[in-house]
Amino acid sequence: MKACGVIVEYNPFHNGHLYHLERSKETAEADCMIAIMSGNFLQRGEPAIIDKWHRAEAALKSGADLVLELPYIYAVEHSDYFSQGAVQALSEIGVESICFGSESGDIQAFLSAHDHLDQHAGLYDETVRKHLNQGYSFPEASRFGYQAVELPTNSIDLAQPNNILGYSYVKQILAYNNQIRPLTIKREKNHYHDETIEGNIASATSIRKELLADGMNLLVQDSIPEATRDQLLLYKENKGMWHEWNQYFSLLQHKILTLKPKDLRSIQGVDEGLEHRLQRIIKESENFQQFMEKLKTKRYTWTRLQRTLVHILTGTEKQDAQLLLNQPPPYVRVLAMSDTGKDYLRSTKKQMRIPLLTQPQQMNHLMLDIEERAAIAYYSVLEASVRNAMIKAEYGAPVQH
Amino acid sequence: MKACGVIVEYNPFHNGHLYHLERSKETAEADCMIAIMSGNFLQRGEPAIIDKWHRAEAALKSGADLVLELPYIYAVEHSDYFSQGAVQALSEIGVESICFGSESGDIQAFLSAHDHLDQHAGLYDETVRKHLNQGYSFPEASRFGYQAVELPTNSIDLAQPNNILGYSYVKQILAYNNQIRPLTIKREKNHYHDETIEGNIASATSIRKELLADGMNLLVQDSIPEATRDQLLLYKENKGMWHEWNQYFSLLQHKILTLKPKDLRSIQGVDEGLEHRLQRIIKESENFQQFMEKLKTKRYTWTRLQRTLVHILTGTEKQDAQLLLNQPPPYVRVLAMSDTGKDYLRSTKKQMRIPLLTQPQQMNHLMLDIEERAAIAYYSVLEASVRNAMIKAEYGAPVQH
Repeated sequence: MKACGVIVEYNPFHNGHLYHLERSKETAEADCMIAIMSGNFLQRGEPAIIDKWHRAEAALKSGADLVLELPYIYAVEHSDYFSQGAVQALSEIGVESICFGSESGDIQAFLSAHDHLDQHAGLYDETVRKHLNQGYSFPEASRFGYQAVELPTNSIDLAQPNNILGYSYVKQILAYNNQIRPLTIKREKNHYHDETIEGNIASATSIRKELLADGMNLLVQDSIPEATRDQLLLYKENKGMWHEWNQYFSLLQHKILTLKPKDLRSIQGVDEGLEHRLQRIIKESENFQQFMEKLKTKRYTWTRLQRTLVHILTGTEKQDAQLLLNQPPPYVRVLAMSDTGKDYLRSTKKQMRIPLLTQPQQMNHLMLDIEERAAIAYYSVLEASVRNAMIKAEYGAPVQH
Repeated sequence: MKACGVIVEYNPFHNGHLYHLERSKETAEADCMIAIMSGNFLQRGEPAIIDKWHRAEAALKSGADLVLELPYIYAVEHSDYFSQGAVQALSEIGVESICFGSESGDIQAFLSAHDHLDQHAGLYDETVRKHLNQGYSFPEASRFGYQAVELPTNSIDLAQPNNILGYSYVKQILAYNNQIRPLTIKREKNHYHDETIEGNIASATSIRKELLADGMNLLVQDSIPEATRDQLLLYKENKGMWHEWNQYFSLLQHKILTLKPKDLRSIQGVDEGLEHRLQRIIKESENFQQFMEKLKTKRYTWTRLQRTLVHILTGTEKQDAQLLLNQPPPYVRVLAMSDTGKDYLRSTKKQMRIPLLTQPQQMNHLMLDIEERAAIAYYSVLEASVRNAMIKAEYGAPVQH
């Protein structure tokens, strides 16, 4: 049985994701499509609009055979760690290929970029370090690195965020398990961060924006499969909301202002006196947007700050994060599976080097403690009765059908 | 100028408090009445129904000349520390007497109890220690201690909570500054913890119960001065609520479940594995009442647990609490003052050994950091715009008129 992996957030699953999933299956000639998906908090440091269970179910109904959870500690990180966690987990579960979307759709362009960067690794590393020391963010410093090594014209443009992510996947594949075939398919229209919907392939950002401002309107319905629409409506009806940062603002304010500076400083991402800046500014802010606008600087980008704020909500300490980010994944956890997915698991399970979990209580691990706190933090804004049921769901079995 | 001190919570200020204040002034032949009052959190481990500023203003309008804040660290503690903090602060500001309410109204009965207990201190201490080791709470263990030393019939009954508190005041006065005259006046009807209102002197407990269940009805209005009614209504109108524990429940649940056990254990009152019990039980509880009922045991009384939960909300660590409880008060802070109160402050200020604060930013002290966190925690349940204004009020000047 041939499995192809895709690395996703599905926030929410839309027509572009459907196209990517179907084309990847063809390109890889795969029998089983495995999506590794961020859980309740996302790479840009945001709560997902609906929880991981409902997003996994939508993906399953739209053609994924297995949905795995990308552990929180990788999911809420910059592209290098994000890719590392995702590629390593897919490798452990035995995928034959990993297929990602890109502007060019040409895998050779990524491979040639990788070759070239590999040959000029010294210059690249030095340039990145220099710019980090000058106060640039990690993505900015990498961009200076790419410029310095002057990529050949037949390789990809690493100024594009999507290409950077794709490039990270290729780099991680070649470093961790070069038996996996890296594949890419050309994206259809609409860029990652576009904020308005045009046509039936829209970005997840524009869909969320529309949903939160205007609800499940026709523009949104045209951009997502029925299964996604159903899960979004179900979640809103039963749990009472679609999640967005501002709902967590009073909780965040309380936490930041009742933690001692020393305890705030122990949280992942709180460095260089940021604890004092956080405490000073949140005291004067009335909502999340206002807080972020006052908080951000050249050094502390919006995304980097949001990730740090998620870590404050979930109580994720830098000591634990550092420990976990520098290990291979300790397990692979299944969130959803089709019959094909189940068959695949049966066949791959014996060959796996790490435990395959269908419920977190099958193992004791620091990483699972963090997952539990992340689930609790995510559901904190729901009403008490719904909240407790969802905290229990964290220990439940995968979605199946 | 002769000052008399009273030790109070005024939650809220009612007719019984008015009677106590007026009779104390007569009995002490005082020119200036000084009330030292708990701030936003109270001795039984509860949020005050309205904040300290509004309670202080009601007291000022009903005859208090000065309202001082009993620092959080003493206020949310058992009677020994509560009395210690209050008596020492009143002593530092130079009161000539301290007058408290009691069932007997006979100060000699308290003094003779003190004499007797002083002579049998060894037996008392030993009995208390033995019962603490057997798992009794501190109030229960003290009661065994009082029984063991067999108080003479002409002294007070230390099985009554009010007598215990009065006795603690006398003990602290004699230990800290025996120049202060201890005075007591006989209480009018209604006991401390009575839950229903009868007649126009009602307990604060029964008034709060009525207010929270039925609003500002005639029964309540008959039991409180106009100034209290005005402040209660003003607070509700402008801040949107009267405070009670259950409003803090989701915040408490989030905090307990996103703190690591080791961090929970560093909080004042979290001992002997209570951290695990808290995490296990709050996960299954839907509101504060349910949580407390599942949580309490013989060893962990309702009041003791509530104090611990307040410390979790305010992030008060045992290390800091122990340090501060074993020092004399580092300052005296004024919450409200009349013209008489102002005159008194002018005359006493020069003779004071510790700073007199009208605003917390006049001093840097660990105790003031805790006060700030307590204010933030208390106001956390208000809407963002009101909340931030009230956090700012913490740095404001005393109420005056």
